[in-house]
Amino acid sequence: MVPGATCALVVLAHLYAFCFSGLLPGSAGSSPCNGTSPNIIIMLMDDMGWGDLGVNGQPAKETPNLDQMAREGMLLPDFYTANPLCSPSRAALLTGRLPIRTGFYTTNAHGRNAYTPQEIVGGIPDSELLLPELLKKAGYVSKIVGKWHLGHRPQYHPLKHGFDEWFGSPNCHFGPYDNKGTPNIPVYRDQEMTGRYYEDFNIDQRTGESNLTQLYLKEALSFIGKQHMNRQPFFLYWAIDASHSPVYASKPFLGISQRGRYGDAVMEIDHSVGMILAYLYQHGLDENTFVFFTSDNGAALSSGQREGGSNGPFLCGKQTTFEGGMREPAIAWWPGHIPAGQVSHQLGSVMDLFTTSLSLAGLQPPDGRMIDGIDLSPVFLQNKMIARSIFYYRGNEMMAVRVGMYKAHYWTWSNSWEELEKGIDFCPGQNVTGVTTHDQKEHTHIPLLFHLGRDPGEKYPLSVTSAEYQDALREISAIVQQHKETLIPGEPQLNICDRAVMNWSPPGCEKLGKCLTPPPSKPWKCIWPH
Amino acid sequence: MVPGATCALVVLAHLYAFCFSGLLPGSAGSSPCNGTSPNIIIMLMDDMGWGDLGVNGQPAKETPNLDQMAREGMLLPDFYTANPLCSPSRAALLTGRLPIRTGFYTTNAHGRNAYTPQEIVGGIPDSELLLPELLKKAGYVSKIVGKWHLGHRPQYHPLKHGFDEWFGSPNCHFGPYDNKGTPNIPVYRDQEMTGRYYEDFNIDQRTGESNLTQLYLKEALSFIGKQHMNRQPFFLYWAIDASHSPVYASKPFLGISQRGRYGDAVMEIDHSVGMILAYLYQHGLDENTFVFFTSDNGAALSSGQREGGSNGPFLCGKQTTFEGGMREPAIAWWPGHIPAGQVSHQLGSVMDLFTTSLSLAGLQPPDGRMIDGIDLSPVFLQNKMIARSIFYYRGNEMMAVRVGMYKAHYWTWSNSWEELEKGIDFCPGQNVTGVTTHDQKEHTHIPLLFHLGRDPGEKYPLSVTSAEYQDALREISAIVQQHKETLIPGEPQLNICDRAVMNWSPPGCEKLGKCLTPPPSKPWKCIWPH
Repeated sequence: MVPGATCALVVLAHLYAFCFSGLLPGSAGSSPCNGTSPNIIIMLMDDMGWGDLGVNGQPAKETPNLDQMAREGMLLPDFYTANPLCSPSRAALLTGRLPIRTGFYTTNAHGRNAYTPQEIVGGIPDSELLLPELLKKAGYVSKIVGKWHLGHRPQYHPLKHGFDEWFGSPNCHFGPYDNKGTPNIPVYRDQEMTGRYYEDFNIDQRTGESNLTQLYLKEALSFIGKQHMNRQPFFLYWAIDASHSPVYASKPFLGISQRGRYGDAVMEIDHSVGMILAYLYQHGLDENTFVFFTSDNGAALSSGQREGGSNGPFLCGKQTTFEGGMREPAIAWWPGHIPAGQVSHQLGSVMDLFTTSLSLAGLQPPDGRMIDGIDLSPVFLQNKMIARSIFYYRGNEMMAVRVGMYKAHYWTWSNSWEELEKGIDFCPGQNVTGVTTHDQKEHTHIPLLFHLGRDPGEKYPLSVTSAEYQDALREISAIVQQHKETLIPGEPQLNICDRAVMNWSPPGCEKLGKCLTPPPSKPWKCIWPH
Repeated sequence: MVPGATCALVVLAHLYAFCFSGLLPGSAGSSPCNGTSPNIIIMLMDDMGWGDLGVNGQPAKETPNLDQMAREGMLLPDFYTANPLCSPSRAALLTGRLPIRTGFYTTNAHGRNAYTPQEIVGGIPDSELLLPELLKKAGYVSKIVGKWHLGHRPQYHPLKHGFDEWFGSPNCHFGPYDNKGTPNIPVYRDQEMTGRYYEDFNIDQRTGESNLTQLYLKEALSFIGKQHMNRQPFFLYWAIDASHSPVYASKPFLGISQRGRYGDAVMEIDHSVGMILAYLYQHGLDENTFVFFTSDNGAALSSGQREGGSNGPFLCGKQTTFEGGMREPAIAWWPGHIPAGQVSHQLGSVMDLFTTSLSLAGLQPPDGRMIDGIDLSPVFLQNKMIARSIFYYRGNEMMAVRVGMYKAHYWTWSNSWEELEKGIDFCPGQNVTGVTTHDQKEHTHIPLLFHLGRDPGEKYPLSVTSAEYQDALREISAIVQQHKETLIPGEPQLNICDRAVMNWSPPGCEKLGKCLTPPPSKPWKCIWPH
């Protein structure tokens, strides 16, 4: 495909405004060539909370670049992830579909969060169409920088699912491991590993020092620069992870935050965001690059004051379907297209980034499957509001739904008493009787209902006998019924674990002398405690 | 005194830059005439919380004017009141002194918040020198608009303590009362009442409608306009109360907020702030008017979702000495003098508004008394940082102290089990074991220590055995010892109650036919449950 071939005049008039696919034979899209298909950068943070940004009220006010990004673009205080845990959330972002549809959940137990640790056998199914695969049809070159988390076995790798380049790791940066019982997590350059965490890419657990964010910044800038040189539209999925425990920062950022090491990590991230936006300005790419900043789930409050972030005024955090688990920081930025300084209360989801990105590229979402993400470009570009609901899933259970200002909980659960007694607390310092329950509590007949405007902290359930409750529930019930009736769950991918599938011998290990011998296969049903 | 007489050249050069007193015989000040003494407006909110401003992270983002004020001035995320309750806080603001010094506390029980309900016999002692009294020496004309709360008996009225004008009430706008057991609260125009709440100044308890904020706005603008016409420097103390339960808003603002009636009140306040700042701009007064926006104590979480505000990520609310009770929204604004868009983490206090206002007027604080407020003008004008501590008092007890990022609790108490059982909860949905205690818990030997940067929500006490605890406590202990050794408590003014002193026959009642007959005097020791 020759970029810009069908729209030469437009390309000449607006140097970085590529548009192709809609008019090319074999393309999936049908949008007219509108001359505004931008580059796309999705900045996905790891365990960063809604309340971690100065613009969202973090008292230390240590995110000047993100705050500036919000002033130059649109802040979305009502933006959500699709799951309170990393892997399902990331699968949802890249497919535009709820994890219950893509199989990124477990049926081993009821309402349990599952993800892709090293033992997991499954990953993103080939039947799913990922954003970079589809963007190819519009001539985009795609790179993922950072954490993949959709399966670490070779068939699941990003380059098998549409990405052209990868620098980062398939799993979380836990460790160090001894390479006997557990291998250290590999870091990939494209198809092959280029080293392992704690061996070739160090994270000093004592000091918190690591230069990974700097590496991820460099990767982003060089990718952008290369595509710019080649006049190639690009999609950069910048999925960095310094704010996930073990949090880290490079030396110049260590100790500079009021907030401790977590704050250091956030400040380095904020700095990097500023560097990327500055690069776009410097190279005249700002008016042709749509940038979206968000996070994969709420702050991990169970990580405590030193490793966990803030969910601002919201209840609980990561792993829960309270607002603190799924409401995300969100900024849309595209100078000259998204008017500066706006706030939109549009209900948004990471899944919308899939549909919106396709729309910006002049493509239609794929046929033959349910897509949950909606096209937010009318919100960003014309500040329109679009009716939609937010579904809060935990594993195989729809725990809650938001419709307008109302949120109905059909199930509540923070975590089990057993886990709590071990010191794992998803709601430290918070306790709302009958809401932050430690048993899985069913409310399907009489949902707990909150008004998130008056009560963003989900502390005051509406009286069941009030007219407000009855009116709101009537509307919500119809939406839930429709959702459930039409839902076809995908085959669960996160049920089976096996130590044999761990990162013993990733592609490329032989070149580095880093191949390890896997133990014999001995699959078991993964245990998901939360 | 002739305004500007000693500085004619300066006045000519800078129309609204009055400066007088320092060089006039009989003045208390000794500052040189610097040509920059501005008008002073202190906007003191009632029960508004730190988290109620968009700029401080309220998710509805409904305070565009305050957010703009912050962008044009300096935001102070580490600003405090001097007490978690209204009357003592207001006494502290106007005297620059801790309530324990001015007598605005009780000794009827240990560590109890006291204020000035209608039954209170006491009020602000004549021995205290209030800001407007002192500003007179620099030629300022002073007006209070709104709630006084330093004693409702005639000898305590604002015009007996330096204010030249008053429109507002001496007590909270509770009611309606039947004028038999309890009189309705009077509203004053200067020395005399001009009506009563719920009779002449209505607050519709059912709908929440009241035009009081509009009246208070009008009073502010007409006062500013008059002083502007007279080329008279002024001090406006705009102590409005729509955000205090029963919260109210005028008709155009009712129902417009995502947040319910409380949000409506905040939006009308925000609108009024915008109108005042716009008026200053329109009349060329912006560069000669220092405006400070803050609140008297934390949001009243016990008022629930419909009547109470938000303390953002901070613990508990009004009545407590946790951050939610005493950390306040704070914005300093003075175009051309305070550089725009700054954030200062200076530890500030409402008491500093006393000392800073005097400084801006070229005056020194009065001799012969301990002043707790510091001059923040180097912070505002040159973004300097000044070492200082914050003392958190509840009644006669120093409950906690903040030094740098550390806060030590010497006593913890939310409220009693008895009150909690009645449904009064100062920390709804929050429960930090050993911290949000329902008994008055003493920690004087081993204070609970928090790092407010890592842990603004006061959820993770530092380990007593850690070096961090030891180092921080050493510094704090020396400061506390010095504070306690030099403290001379004032005579408590809030111990005695008597129904005979209620607002039965306020000055001016006879002109309105609104005099009521008081019951015989029968004083008792006031009971303060919190």
